[in-house]
Amino acid sequence: MTELPLRTIGRPDRRIDAGEKVSGRAVYTTDIDLPGMLHAKVLRSPHGHARIRSIDASAARAMPGVHAVLTRDETAAIPMPVYGYFIKDQPIVATDKVRYEGDIVAAVAAEDEGTANRALAAIRVEYEPLPAVTDIERASDPDAPELFEKPPIGIVPKYGQGASGELRPRRNVCYRFSYETGPADAFAECDHVFEDVFHFSRMHHLHLEPFVCIADWSREDRIELWSSCQNPFPVRKEIARIFGIAENRIAVRVPYIGGGFGSKNGCKTEPVALALSRLAGRPVRFCLTLEEGFLTNTQHAAILKVKTGVMADGTLVARESEILLDSGAYSDGSPLVAEKAGYRIPGPYRYRHIKTDCYCVMTNTAPAGPFRGFGGTQTSWACESQIDMIAHRLGIDPYEMRRKNLIDLGEPFVPGESGMDSDLREGLDLVVRELGYRRRDELQSDGPVKRGMGLAIGFKDGGGVNKPALARVKVSTGGDIFLQCGTAEIGQGAHTALSAVVAERLGADRSRVRYMPVDTDHTPFDQGTNASSAISVMGQAVDRAALSARRQILDFAAEKLGCPADELDLADWEIRRGNEAHALAPMIMGHFGGTGWEFVGEGFHKAKNSHAAPLEAPCVFWEIGWGGAQVAVDTETGQVTVEKLFVTGDAGRAIHPLVCRGQDEGAALMGLSQALFERMIYDGSRLVNGDALTYRVPLADDLPADFRSVTQEQGHGPGPFGAKGMGEGGMLPVASAIANAIHDAVGVRITELPLSPERVLAGLAAKNGDR
Amino acid sequence: MTELPLRTIGRPDRRIDAGEKVSGRAVYTTDIDLPGMLHAKVLRSPHGHARIRSIDASAARAMPGVHAVLTRDETAAIPMPVYGYFIKDQPIVATDKVRYEGDIVAAVAAEDEGTANRALAAIRVEYEPLPAVTDIERASDPDAPELFEKPPIGIVPKYGQGASGELRPRRNVCYRFSYETGPADAFAECDHVFEDVFHFSRMHHLHLEPFVCIADWSREDRIELWSSCQNPFPVRKEIARIFGIAENRIAVRVPYIGGGFGSKNGCKTEPVALALSRLAGRPVRFCLTLEEGFLTNTQHAAILKVKTGVMADGTLVARESEILLDSGAYSDGSPLVAEKAGYRIPGPYRYRHIKTDCYCVMTNTAPAGPFRGFGGTQTSWACESQIDMIAHRLGIDPYEMRRKNLIDLGEPFVPGESGMDSDLREGLDLVVRELGYRRRDELQSDGPVKRGMGLAIGFKDGGGVNKPALARVKVSTGGDIFLQCGTAEIGQGAHTALSAVVAERLGADRSRVRYMPVDTDHTPFDQGTNASSAISVMGQAVDRAALSARRQILDFAAEKLGCPADELDLADWEIRRGNEAHALAPMIMGHFGGTGWEFVGEGFHKAKNSHAAPLEAPCVFWEIGWGGAQVAVDTETGQVTVEKLFVTGDAGRAIHPLVCRGQDEGAALMGLSQALFERMIYDGSRLVNGDALTYRVPLADDLPADFRSVTQEQGHGPGPFGAKGMGEGGMLPVASAIANAIHDAVGVRITELPLSPERVLAGLAAKNGDR
Repeated sequence: MTELPLRTIGRPDRRIDAGEKVSGRAVYTTDIDLPGMLHAKVLRSPHGHARIRSIDASAARAMPGVHAVLTRDETAAIPMPVYGYFIKDQPIVATDKVRYEGDIVAAVAAEDEGTANRALAAIRVEYEPLPAVTDIERASDPDAPELFEKPPIGIVPKYGQGASGELRPRRNVCYRFSYETGPADAFAECDHVFEDVFHFSRMHHLHLEPFVCIADWSREDRIELWSSCQNPFPVRKEIARIFGIAENRIAVRVPYIGGGFGSKNGCKTEPVALALSRLAGRPVRFCLTLEEGFLTNTQHAAILKVKTGVMADGTLVARESEILLDSGAYSDGSPLVAEKAGYRIPGPYRYRHIKTDCYCVMTNTAPAGPFRGFGGTQTSWACESQIDMIAHRLGIDPYEMRRKNLIDLGEPFVPGESGMDSDLREGLDLVVRELGYRRRDELQSDGPVKRGMGLAIGFKDGGGVNKPALARVKVSTGGDIFLQCGTAEIGQGAHTALSAVVAERLGADRSRVRYMPVDTDHTPFDQGTNASSAISVMGQAVDRAALSARRQILDFAAEKLGCPADELDLADWEIRRGNEAHALAPMIMGHFGGTGWEFVGEGFHKAKNSHAAPLEAPCVFWEIGWGGAQVAVDTETGQVTVEKLFVTGDAGRAIHPLVCRGQDEGAALMGLSQALFERMIYDGSRLVNGDALTYRVPLADDLPADFRSVTQEQGHGPGPFGAKGMGEGGMLPVASAIANAIHDAVGVRITELPLSPERVLAGLAAKNGDR
Repeated sequence: MTELPLRTIGRPDRRIDAGEKVSGRAVYTTDIDLPGMLHAKVLRSPHGHARIRSIDASAARAMPGVHAVLTRDETAAIPMPVYGYFIKDQPIVATDKVRYEGDIVAAVAAEDEGTANRALAAIRVEYEPLPAVTDIERASDPDAPELFEKPPIGIVPKYGQGASGELRPRRNVCYRFSYETGPADAFAECDHVFEDVFHFSRMHHLHLEPFVCIADWSREDRIELWSSCQNPFPVRKEIARIFGIAENRIAVRVPYIGGGFGSKNGCKTEPVALALSRLAGRPVRFCLTLEEGFLTNTQHAAILKVKTGVMADGTLVARESEILLDSGAYSDGSPLVAEKAGYRIPGPYRYRHIKTDCYCVMTNTAPAGPFRGFGGTQTSWACESQIDMIAHRLGIDPYEMRRKNLIDLGEPFVPGESGMDSDLREGLDLVVRELGYRRRDELQSDGPVKRGMGLAIGFKDGGGVNKPALARVKVSTGGDIFLQCGTAEIGQGAHTALSAVVAERLGADRSRVRYMPVDTDHTPFDQGTNASSAISVMGQAVDRAALSARRQILDFAAEKLGCPADELDLADWEIRRGNEAHALAPMIMGHFGGTGWEFVGEGFHKAKNSHAAPLEAPCVFWEIGWGGAQVAVDTETGQVTVEKLFVTGDAGRAIHPLVCRGQDEGAALMGLSQALFERMIYDGSRLVNGDALTYRVPLADDLPADFRSVTQEQGHGPGPFGAKGMGEGGMLPVASAIANAIHDAVGVRITELPLSPERVLAGLAAKNGDR
């Protein structure tokens, strides 16, 4: 950890977006209004699976106030009217078939949303219903109805073939990730081999800001797009491909984002809005309702089969797993989620043998994609539940079982991987201490209410796969600082943290730094805002850019002052040399002449892509979420009350402590919600709780009475000043910690989420032999 | 000159803005429409000079649809509510006094211009008229009425004190430029000393696009400004200073500009629009009428006294001059125009002694500022008229007299200056050849119509004073090229030429280059679009940026291919090595991973500012305009018909020949117009012809029957591929060439512009002894 006196890093300054956000002045995509802007609405399939016989949109086209109608007739003229992260399987609007209830069939741009909706009602679609399949085990059967009769076009070979070389080993599998390390015969040496199956429910991201974009393609050779989108550069690339337009004719601009949690990574509203704008010759706003959000992107439900070999003393030896992920009707980010889930299933422990197989199974449900934790939530649920189950089977305290097997600081998870950059035991001991875990036997029962405690350690390789990031820091003659980088402010506080890094390096007040609006025309290339990469990946690029600017300024001053640069320091836009202070502005004006100049520092981060690790490159950092819960279980009602919830992450160095805490606690609350409440419920192919009233999220009084977090600063991160990424870790341990606590309280092991009263009661009944 | 085979440079491709402009799709500032945008109008002084006793705007403020009223009461709260290039003397709205008819007294922002105008009519202003002075000789008398009783605030010391050390040697002088080189006693050795006085008329720039800006200061900490402005960075700096806002909170954006000719260099509409936007909390559009343009900025009228010592054989020895420039009521760019006029008055000839004194005199007329030629038009008029006059007095052919005295290629104009970078005799001989000057004795008279020919060489140090320029060239993974630089497209074709340079260097079709919109938030710093600096100054920065990007790409490929970079070439986004071609996109993706990357080349130009020359730095290049005219003078009516007009400039290397020709011919036509027609006529302090109907400009049939230009490519320019700047040179020789031709035809010497029939008749009468 840098031990210099710091003026900005680590200080509890107000977030740079705080004033705008609390006063309502902050601009989100929904706030953007363009002259002549039309409004889009889409017609969605009422069938889970059907062939489209005909579409008659003539009445809609004739309606006053309707400026464009988009059906498969229009998309036929678009060069490649399908999209997807890796496999280009999702049509802009349906062509031959619809594949889930909610699939987009047609779109209208009209003077207002009401007119657009009336026009949609006038579109006649004739469907031939087909059998729908919504269960992943059934969908992967060899005789299941097929979503795609022929493989989707545009498959990226690497992903299409997968590590195993097979494209579709089962039916409706769009991707398979497999890998193996260490000798397979390790199981033979184990004292015990345990095999358990876990079910993971499907959540919706439920970001408060809807999916929305404003697309302006009114001029033929120029696309301007404002989008609530986490990855503007990949979206630019996708749009260029779909519509056959050069990337330098497309500007994707990202205002503040009101939450995304992964769902806003790829194209969502953009292709429809652009196609309509081109047809209408006017800007088009396409804003989904909250209900449409449920139909647009979700987390992956999963079935996780985990087989673990251990010695009698609790030493882990081998783990094999098979994971089925529910990808829904289109592949979206599924391939990468599969890789991550498959990779992370062993958890942060030492094994001699790991084997993993993860399948993305397509079903006639809403498409699933990236979600906070990115496969790690699913795997932490299974892994950390099973660790406890094994400990109990072996008669070992789950804490001791974990402690014995945890990877050491600096130890690679698998050969070729980055070394562990947190002391895992330090975090675990902190949870135990904060929770009072060692005194859990003293917890009082309260009539039918029993209490217990559980622990868990969530684990993921953080910072994304092979994410290049570039940044630019400009300083004007007067010392005003411009920070140009592609990280979107999605609520996580990244603009605050990255600005603080720049201010620190340039010896400036943070108010002198302006974080420039993200705009692909001008912002340096960046892969996207995801995978807890803002400080760990972009932070490195920004830090290098700031240091480059600093170096140029000091070198310039050294030349003017005729002394070595290392005698100089930069503070408050003055050059300090011992007790002397030299104002920079006149020095610059005198040298460069004219009315100004600017120093431009560029920085980048490039992944090591050594191809040594099972994935393409050693990970940027390890994101760890340690957690513990104390629950009270009412054995009469099955009601679980989380009385204490404690999470801790390792920020490496907390650039902005409040932001770190906010990320950990926000993530933990999302974990709590998945543990206890959230689940998208399908009745056949129909989502039955896809609205704000019936979709259960935590209310204020669902919060644990004792809900705390501690941000560790272990100092081993790759980011500026030793920082590591935050934002996902806090979610990872929560569900399993609570499940473990329930088991601790009442001896009931629940292996399916959410941990509902019904499941508790069923578990109690089974335990009592009522079944 | 680079002799490589070139694919873009020098080819007659279509201008990159041609399609947009002929189809009407091109976006100018006037096309920008923002939601909630208000419209501004201003109240102007009806007096040439008056003290303001009171302003009552209460009725205007109360009018429905009026959102903001700006008077001195409101500007009192602005940190520094005055502006100006060097001397901050122009108030946003008048405070104590008005100083010319048209001076802005109040402004209104309303729902529409009609409402704004009605509100202005309701503002009551009480004036105390003061004596106005509109004649520069009278204005500089010690007892003349004073425009500023106390020196304006914010005087930049360097300019305030001038070379002579005196600030106000005469009354109403806002700046004086003086310099001297060589022995003053050189006059004593001369066989003859001639002293002549020339009067130069005042033109308006008459750009077809009006002065206009859209100012959005609805959010406290953010200014967005779209402006038809040649110098967005200096304007940003001025706005930052006026309103006390950091430069990184201000974005100045420059769409296409519909002509400026110098008038759009500094703040014009921006301060009023911004002040109104802040008051109203809404965007404000402020667009002047053509008539208001006449009241906003003009050329400098001038009186030029030139004393020249020569030997009997025509060898020039010494030249002293005193120039009075009419600055109008506010200083604007006057100090720099004074430096340039004073510096250029000797013309492109060799002298042993030069002495110059140039005064900016303030009068109660519209402010004068930069104008195509920038002092050089005034001085060419005097210099090139006097060369002919001296030749005739000595009985030498004016062509021979010029040829004898011209500076040689490579010879510095004065010690410390850049060497002459055109062969001046080559250009002169070209004019003589093209015009048939040597056979002018054979020209037929036609009754009262007499014919004659005249020559002239206009001369200016080009590229601006101490203009730093930065540029950036980005190339995406797919080979799309982004060119970011601050040069505005003002009709001169700079975007076409600069894009061609980038395309050439990167081996790409020009269509792959996108010239990014000029926006101070994102575009690298640049001093401005003026002084024929686009190719000569920015061109160097752009070329270096492109070469840097090229170098990075070749180095990258060399590393991947394991060979030296100098074995590689770049063409069509492939690496060529002998007969091999390697596609770059997959090579980049493989190396950097992720979905993309970009190569970023930065380049800059910095003036040499050696302080050796009389000005701050040796000039970037010499802009020469050679010209010749054949006239027919009707001795009965005084009518002058220009039958032939030939101009030639030296492009060094014509990056885009059509653009070069357009610049030379456009400039020549402006020169013709000044020679024969244009003049702002004042009756006292009232401009009497400040509108499109009465202000005489050339009509289609005023064009010479034989009007031609030739673009020389002598290859000695500092710009890319040997290019030099164009755009002003063509204007410089025209008026004196025509005056010289009139003298050649009828023996009448006119020393005052325009060359009107009245002046011809008066000259004929004087010659015939009628006077």
